[in-house]
Amino acid sequence: MPERLGGYTVGFPNRPTILGYAAVGGKKEGEGPLGKYFDAVFEDTHLGQDTWEQAESALQREALTRAVEKTGLAKNQLQVLFAGDLLNQNIASTFGLREMEVPLIGQFGACSTMGQTLALAALFVDSGAADLCGAVTSSHFCTAERQFRFPLEYGGQRTPTSQWTATASGACVVGRGGHGVRVDSVCFGRVCDLGVTDMNNMGAAMAPAAADTISRYLQDTETTPKDYDLVVTGDLGQVGSDLCRELLEEKGITLGGNYTDCGLLLFDRQRQDVHAGGSGCGCSAAVLCAHLLPLMEKEMFKRVLFCPTGALMSPTSSQQGESIPGICHAVCLVRE
Amino acid sequence: MPERLGGYTVGFPNRPTILGYAAVGGKKEGEGPLGKYFDAVFEDTHLGQDTWEQAESALQREALTRAVEKTGLAKNQLQVLFAGDLLNQNIASTFGLREMEVPLIGQFGACSTMGQTLALAALFVDSGAADLCGAVTSSHFCTAERQFRFPLEYGGQRTPTSQWTATASGACVVGRGGHGVRVDSVCFGRVCDLGVTDMNNMGAAMAPAAADTISRYLQDTETTPKDYDLVVTGDLGQVGSDLCRELLEEKGITLGGNYTDCGLLLFDRQRQDVHAGGSGCGCSAAVLCAHLLPLMEKEMFKRVLFCPTGALMSPTSSQQGESIPGICHAVCLVRE
Repeated sequence: MPERLGGYTVGFPNRPTILGYAAVGGKKEGEGPLGKYFDAVFEDTHLGQDTWEQAESALQREALTRAVEKTGLAKNQLQVLFAGDLLNQNIASTFGLREMEVPLIGQFGACSTMGQTLALAALFVDSGAADLCGAVTSSHFCTAERQFRFPLEYGGQRTPTSQWTATASGACVVGRGGHGVRVDSVCFGRVCDLGVTDMNNMGAAMAPAAADTISRYLQDTETTPKDYDLVVTGDLGQVGSDLCRELLEEKGITLGGNYTDCGLLLFDRQRQDVHAGGSGCGCSAAVLCAHLLPLMEKEMFKRVLFCPTGALMSPTSSQQGESIPGICHAVCLVRE
Repeated sequence: MPERLGGYTVGFPNRPTILGYAAVGGKKEGEGPLGKYFDAVFEDTHLGQDTWEQAESALQREALTRAVEKTGLAKNQLQVLFAGDLLNQNIASTFGLREMEVPLIGQFGACSTMGQTLALAALFVDSGAADLCGAVTSSHFCTAERQFRFPLEYGGQRTPTSQWTATASGACVVGRGGHGVRVDSVCFGRVCDLGVTDMNNMGAAMAPAAADTISRYLQDTETTPKDYDLVVTGDLGQVGSDLCRELLEEKGITLGGNYTDCGLLLFDRQRQDVHAGGSGCGCSAAVLCAHLLPLMEKEMFKRVLFCPTGALMSPTSSQQGESIPGICHAVCLVRE
């Protein structure tokens, strides 16, 4: 059963296993450096649906279905689903997973959702509350742009600090025993808000939360960045990940060459015109399931600290002059 | 540690305790039958804030602060907060709890959120993942109306089946030992969608989910409605609760005089012009914390099945012609 390791970090002595996982993405994601590792790439960003929102739901359904298939188990053997997304009232998840007939515990952690859902799935399995759980999230460039920024038809200019919301979904099935990458421990994040108000610079808004959670996790577990083959934040992009390094340096923690960010991995920033990098719940979810987990299965990485980050504002809060609070949940993954 | 009782029901052998709880509400809620049992009633629906969204955040902050105060513990002794609301991107929770400096695991279950957050808080405590957790949710008539329906200034007509979103918040602090009502077990709900598309008849949309979760919980625990002093759904209102009775009757389960609905308890339907009853995350949360828990502490009820219900649509999904999926999480509360 889970045990508190001090602070806000929880260890999982039973080491729940990621028994199956899958990543699916859109055309642009397919053309990126990780494109060939996706389980499916959809050239049509509508995925044959009438609306982009329905397309995003289809992404979640595809990712989870493929993740379950890889375990050799049936969908109805899942006992709990943890899912969330960026859309108002989590509709990508609800409508995407409606037909699963499995209990759904809806999550909202903005772009940190893959960490949050994976952490809760592992906690349920480790504690005995469930034998088999699903963790899934998604984002879609077209649904996010029109909800958070402008209608695509408006053709708005993008600033150099802005990031590109990934059209992607990632899903993990977590259970006991078996072969695969295991979830060692998690550190749930606090809301951090240093007063950034620029909706085109999410990386800077989220970096303080990443630095807070990473430093607390390292302290709670009495480890340093050198103890990990990779420390990877969610979707800080170039601006935010540089800032995260700086903030941790101020705390006496040096992130070396083993630090990177999912927002820097998903796209080729020069070639694909994504400015500061990728973002969206689907960014870290797809990088986890198309890149990190496969490399861990091949034992190229044995210990990874996966730290997805989220910006917790809404268009309403920003229009009302509020700053952008950030959050980050850290999940330590091990390949033994 | 938690144990699966069959199906999707999880039992908590350590029986986590609701060590503190509080309910706060607006003027109309204060004038209702439960008004005098609220910890605070705010005559000014702005709570001194600039916007209604900020007022809703203030409601959550007030409720949680008062719940923590009653435990005699300090806010920073909480290890995890589970919180959610109806607003886009959960901003009532994020901005309301931003200054708590406690890890936040954002939840979305629409009006079922009080059940979902309380269930997760209990599961974390029972499993040892945390010693002390907070569960909180809110709704605000003015934020909900303008987000889900029409600007208040529009003066839209309300149908007889429509419900009144509560301006209220409820919060529980869950820990180990001590005196108080205990969380015995929970059943997490599946998404149920029978195709209701009328956004002015949420009760009917949510009733199938309530019937599904209640029947599964009773089956998993081998109990009948007679084993509970009270079975109480979230915010089905008159239309939905009648339908819930019918749907359960079809499954051979008779809800007797010990069944009611939070949406029928919060307001005086005749006198207060709320049509089919109260609704919103804050409805079941406030009824729990202003009515059910106090009566359980006085041992007037010893065993209550608390079943908040949620409608998982968004204005976007409804505008796109989607039906309204419902969900219900059941939490069994005991006073020993």
